[in-house]
Parts: sequence; structure tokens; C-alpha cells
Amino acid sequence: MPTISQRGQQMPASPIRKLVPFAEAAKARGTKVYHLNIGQPDLPTPAPFWDAVRQFCNTPVLEYSHSAGILSYRQALCDYFLRRHKLSLTPDNIIITNGGSEAVRFAMAACLNPGDEVIVPEPFYANYNSFAIESGVKIVPLTTYVTESFDLPPVEAFAACITPRTKAIILCNPSNPTGKLYSDADLAKLREIVLKHDLYLFSDEAYQEFAYDGETFRSALSLEGMEQHVVVMDTVSKRWSACGARIGAFITRNTELYNAAMRLAQARLSPPTLGQIGSQALCILPDSYYTEVQAEYVARRDTVINALQQIPGVICPRVSGAFYVMPSLPIDDSDRFCQWLLEEFSHEGYTVMMAPGTGFYATPGLGRQEVRIAYVLERQHLAHAMQCLAVALEQYPGRVAPQATAKANA
Amino acid sequence: MPTISQRGQQMPASPIRKLVPFAEAAKARGTKVYHLNIGQPDLPTPAPFWDAVRQFCNTPVLEYSHSAGILSYRQALCDYFLRRHKLSLTPDNIIITNGGSEAVRFAMAACLNPGDEVIVPEPFYANYNSFAIESGVKIVPLTTYVTESFDLPPVEAFAACITPRTKAIILCNPSNPTGKLYSDADLAKLREIVLKHDLYLFSDEAYQEFAYDGETFRSALSLEGMEQHVVVMDTVSKRWSACGARIGAFITRNTELYNAAMRLAQARLSPPTLGQIGSQALCILPDSYYTEVQAEYVARRDTVINALQQIPGVICPRVSGAFYVMPSLPIDDSDRFCQWLLEEFSHEGYTVMMAPGTGFYATPGLGRQEVRIAYVLERQHLAHAMQCLAVALEQYPGRVAPQATAKANA
Repeated sequence: MPTISQRGQQMPASPIRKLVPFAEAAKARGTKVYHLNIGQPDLPTPAPFWDAVRQFCNTPVLEYSHSAGILSYRQALCDYFLRRHKLSLTPDNIIITNGGSEAVRFAMAACLNPGDEVIVPEPFYANYNSFAIESGVKIVPLTTYVTESFDLPPVEAFAACITPRTKAIILCNPSNPTGKLYSDADLAKLREIVLKHDLYLFSDEAYQEFAYDGETFRSALSLEGMEQHVVVMDTVSKRWSACGARIGAFITRNTELYNAAMRLAQARLSPPTLGQIGSQALCILPDSYYTEVQAEYVARRDTVINALQQIPGVICPRVSGAFYVMPSLPIDDSDRFCQWLLEEFSHEGYTVMMAPGTGFYATPGLGRQEVRIAYVLERQHLAHAMQCLAVALEQYPGRVAPQATAKANA
Repeated sequence: MPTISQRGQQMPASPIRKLVPFAEAAKARGTKVYHLNIGQPDLPTPAPFWDAVRQFCNTPVLEYSHSAGILSYRQALCDYFLRRHKLSLTPDNIIITNGGSEAVRFAMAACLNPGDEVIVPEPFYANYNSFAIESGVKIVPLTTYVTESFDLPPVEAFAACITPRTKAIILCNPSNPTGKLYSDADLAKLREIVLKHDLYLFSDEAYQEFAYDGETFRSALSLEGMEQHVVVMDTVSKRWSACGARIGAFITRNTELYNAAMRLAQARLSPPTLGQIGSQALCILPDSYYTEVQAEYVARRDTVINALQQIPGVICPRVSGAFYVMPSLPIDDSDRFCQWLLEEFSHEGYTVMMAPGTGFYATPGLGRQEVRIAYVLERQHLAHAMQCLAVALEQYPGRVAPQATAKANA
């Protein structure tokens, strides 16, 4: 029997999806499961998406689109970025991708050779690991801490990670999994290190419309003098509640890099046509759409964080972006705890599914007291889910003393 | 400015799409272009696809699907394969992919390490090159010849290509770009070499419903004792005229390999939901659908081949599958000729766009007298396109003596 490749063996199971069989077993036993494990928004996909797709169903032949995506959609995206984020882009800066995931893969494959290194503040979106393994790229984690509100490390900490093989930094802003929204000062810090060492900055801006508390999201594309350095990885999944469309974007002003990514894009022919048709119709959503969505997520976030901060031994910084929090819990092992929740626990017929923290760290041993919670349910359900979690933490046999805090629950 | 990766530089431009700017310029001049360069069928996407998508537009949230694809769609595909090809499969043998392209990528990434070799009869589907470069895999071409009707080489020729790094063979059956439908004897030949050297057989069966002249397509999944060795790369693009759906499948009975490919699939979350919804509705198309489609393509193929065989100096074997032919023309250089057709030629206001043969060969210098023609237009247009080609070959300044033939135009 022929063997599996090394990368095939090393490829990690998704920390977000690996507990699915335990959740299915819990449901089979009659336990209801609050799904806080996955960033699948529950808000309706806006009606213009469906209207556009329904209309398109009169097309005779469902054809390949341009490899870079439908031109009118790329133009509409430019209009969206200008109106919402004051970014000046042209369709020739944009390649429409199969979800944000493909944009990550294109960035790694087009910029990094096998053995090259990319610095990533951890905890980070787990699937960066998978794409790094597939590309033969080495992720160099730079740890941030729940007790410090996941603040970005100082420039010196980045500098200390740089080697002759360092080629890029990945930032997810606002952050999945921590909910951290990075400030102008943070971006200035990254700009300094990127320009000094002639690196790429891969900016995952999937959650760009999820910035709260009067804070402003700032795209890496707005940083001065970074035209040759920045790749933005975008997706419609979150901001338009359209995860199943599988439509993202690879955005850069670096022409040579764009052309290399286009050759990767041509190899897979085109992104899905129907998802593009629907997404194009959403580029003109009024600002009020975003205001309403943000208000809903702020209320949910407050529900979750306020509840978490009431639970003894839980540390949960008050973050201002995305729809995740990553609290520290008084537990021995987040993998064991999350599995125990599904296998052995229920409260009033309910349990909670969360993503264990370990999957979001590259440094072995980190994340064992953390979980990622996606607040993508209605408030009343979130409130009840947090009650379940509080009861579970009382009952869990692996409960341990909470970790010492520096700026806890700030 | 940071540099592009080696693979980013090496990635070839698509031979199918690289002449697009010249075609656009021709159209801007008022010349009509017959598009024979790309395998984009013109037949309507069957109505049940559109009906199912239209119906699905009442869904509130467009969610991620399972990473392996929607279970009911995988089950429906199993039913399709059983009914149409007598293959017994389960949903756990199938991962739904972003087009057939992603299935090719999963196969290479999960089975081959960088530096490993895969033997591919050439000419072959050009994008195998791109995925091989991205994966760091070396393609070892085994040349087949237009003058021998692109017959598969003998077992000894495969054996001569085997090294300690050989890990797989790719076969596209029926073949894109040659239209060759492989016989049971051909598959038995491959089975022998695969089992003897413990290789994988990656079988690209995108054109499985396009077998003509009473010949029967036989899937590699039907080969005895090959359960651990065979990966089938499938797509709905061609058989259901739904290229823009971007729905394919990675199919294997090898559990360990399936699991490795699933981890790659989890990294990109899920395939497009809308394309799956539509495709599921097509799994129950009656046999009469395929009979009618085949009759149409046979008539087109005959139109093209009969015309080509009348043109002095053209060699075009009478092949029985897919919707391509790859004739040899009396020209100096197929890249130059195809560009000349778009830049300098027109006949009665029309010209012809074809894919230069060179892009389908890995051996340098081969394919310079060949072009790939996709017969995906109505017969009357194909007939006129062949007239244009005949006139063009008379006028082309780079016309040369035709190559010697062994079994020409058999």
C-alpha cells in the first residue's frame, strides 16, 4: 500500500471541527448543544444576495468566470472598499478566491519558498497551520497573553524572531480567535518592522466590519509606503453572513505578486459563479446594515463577557472586534474539558460546544486553559450557554486554580 | 521590495487562457472569434439544477457545508455512480471539492512529498503542471504521439520511467487534450505497473460521460485489487455543463488517504453550498440525457474531424472521447500560429481561437505543430470555424511541410 505524504500526515485536524463526532453523539442522547465552536453567523444572509441568485437562475449555461473573478463584481468590491474603508483600489488589485482560505494559500504559495518563515502572533486562526504545512512554510509564533488583553508584542519582540528565512508576518485584524482590534499604533509598529526587514504583511481582514466601542478598523492597505508589501485576505463569509458562498479575495497593489497569484488562480480556473453573483448585490448595502449588525454583536459580546467575568477564576479581556472571545478558564486541559462538556455534561438538557485553545497556538503546551467562544447565537441563548458553562466549571473534575493575572478582565 | 517565491515564478500561464488579451483585441477590431480554446460546454445547464438553486434561495442563512460536502449530495453521487457506471461507493469515499482542480491538488499534496515523481502520459491537461509546481512534485512525462493516435505506451515504457521517487501515475480518461478513450487493455496495463511498483493511480475522469462509437468508459475505481491505489478526480463541470458551479469530487476507497485529504478539506472549510444544491438535483438525470448529449458531441466531433482530415497536411486521429481533438498542423510554431490567428487573420469577419499544443507537453519542444480544439459550439459554427482554419493554414507565413505519419488519420 502506498504511503501518505509527510504533509498529509502532519496536517492537523481542525480544532474547530474535530469535536463534531462528540457533539453528534450528545445530540443523539437528546442533549441540546449550543454551538459556540464555529464562526458561522446566524444572522440572515441579506435579501439582495438571494434576489440576485434567483434572478441569475434564468441563465442558460453556468459558465466559468474570469480566473480573477467577474469584472463587475471586482469593480463593485472596489466601490465597497472606497465607501466603507476609504481605500482606493482597482479591479486589477483583486483576485476573487474560493473563500478567504484560498487567499491565504495564494499568499503563502506565491511569496514563500519551502523552509521560509512567517511570524504570526499567537493564538492565531488555526488553519494558517494547515496552509503552512501544505506550502512547506514554517510558522514562527510570537505569543500574546490573555492576561495582557492579547496586546501586540513590542517591535523588539518581532525583531528577535527575524532570521534570514523570515519572509512575512500574518496579522488577523480584528483577530480570530481573540477578538482583538489592533490600533493605529499597532499597525505603525508592524509597518516599521516590515519595511525595515523587507517583509510581506499578510493581513487577514475577514472581520473588518466587526469593530465596536467607537474604535475604527484600519486596513493594512491604508499604510503608507507599503504598496509592495501588503496582501489583504478578505471574505464575504462574515460581514455578509454568507459562509457557504465560498467567496473571498486576494488583494494587493504589488503587480508582480498579483501576476504570480493570478497564475495560481488560473490553475484552478475560476471562483464559484453563483457566490459572486450574490455577493456583488451586497456591495451596495447601506451603512445602516453594518450599524445594525454591529449593535447586535456588541450586545451579544457584552452578554458573553459580562457573564464570563462573573464566573470565579475566569479571565476574559473586553475586546472590541470580530465575534470571538478567548477566555482563560480554571481547567487542566481545554481539549479534555471541551470533550467532557459534550460527553458527560448537561445542564437543563443543554451543553456547550467550544473550540479548545490549544489548536490556536503553535507553541506546544499553550492554550490548555483557554477556549475560543464564537458569539453567533441570539442573546438569550448565549446567556443560557454561559450559565451552562458556569455550572460545568463547578462540576468539571479537572478544575484547577486560576492563573495569575496581570491586567485581568480590564 | 520582497521577492516572489520560486514556485510563484515557475507557475506557468494557462495555455488555454494566455491568449485572452489577443482575443479581446481582435473583438475590439470587430473580428468575431470562434472560441475553441476552452472546454466550456455551450449546452444548457439542465433545468433541475436551476430549479433546486431557485428553491434554496428561500434559505435564511447561507451556511458552510460539511467539509466533505453535503451528506445527501454525496449519497446522491453514490447513486449516480452505481446507476451509470456500476460502481459501489459510500459517502465516506467522497470529498466534494472546489471543482475537479481541488481534487487534483488534494491528491498531489496528500500522496506526494516535494521531490517525488509522478508519471503522466503527454500531452496532458496543462494545469497538472501548475499543481505539481505548487506541491513541489516532479512531473515525468511519457510521450504519446499524434501519428499513433495517442496510444498509451507499452508497460515497458512506464517501467523505464520508474525511479525510487516515483509515487504515482496520472491518467486523464477520456483524455483532455487528446480525446483518447482508454481501453480495458490500457487500464490493465496501468494496473500491472501500479501494483508492481506500489504506486497511486490518479484517474481524472472529468469526461466519463463522453464516450462515443459504442466504446465504454471504464472507471479506475472498477479495477480489481486497486482499492488502496486509486484516486478518482471528478467534476460536474463537463457532464452537467456547470463549469461555474465549481463542484468536483476526490474519490478513494483508501481510508488513510481519505483522512489525510479530509484534513486538507477542513483547512478550506467547505466547498460552495449553492453548487452542491444544484448538482445534487442532477444526479437523477435519466439515461436519455446522456444519450442526447453524446449524440450532439459525436455529430460535432465528426464535423470537426472530417473537416480537419480534408485539410492538406493536417493529421487528426479519430478519437472516441471527451470533446477535444489535438491535430497536427503544418505550422512552424503553435504559439505563434494561434497568436497570429487572433492578431492578423480573419476570414469573412471571423477567426479561430485555439490552445497551442506546447502548453500540454512537459518535454521541451514538443507540441509545436499541435493545437487543442474544443468542439463546444454548434455544428454550423464548428464547420465555419474549420473553414476559417483551412484558409488560415493557406495564408499563414509560418507554414511548413507536414510531419511524416505512421497511422495518420486512422
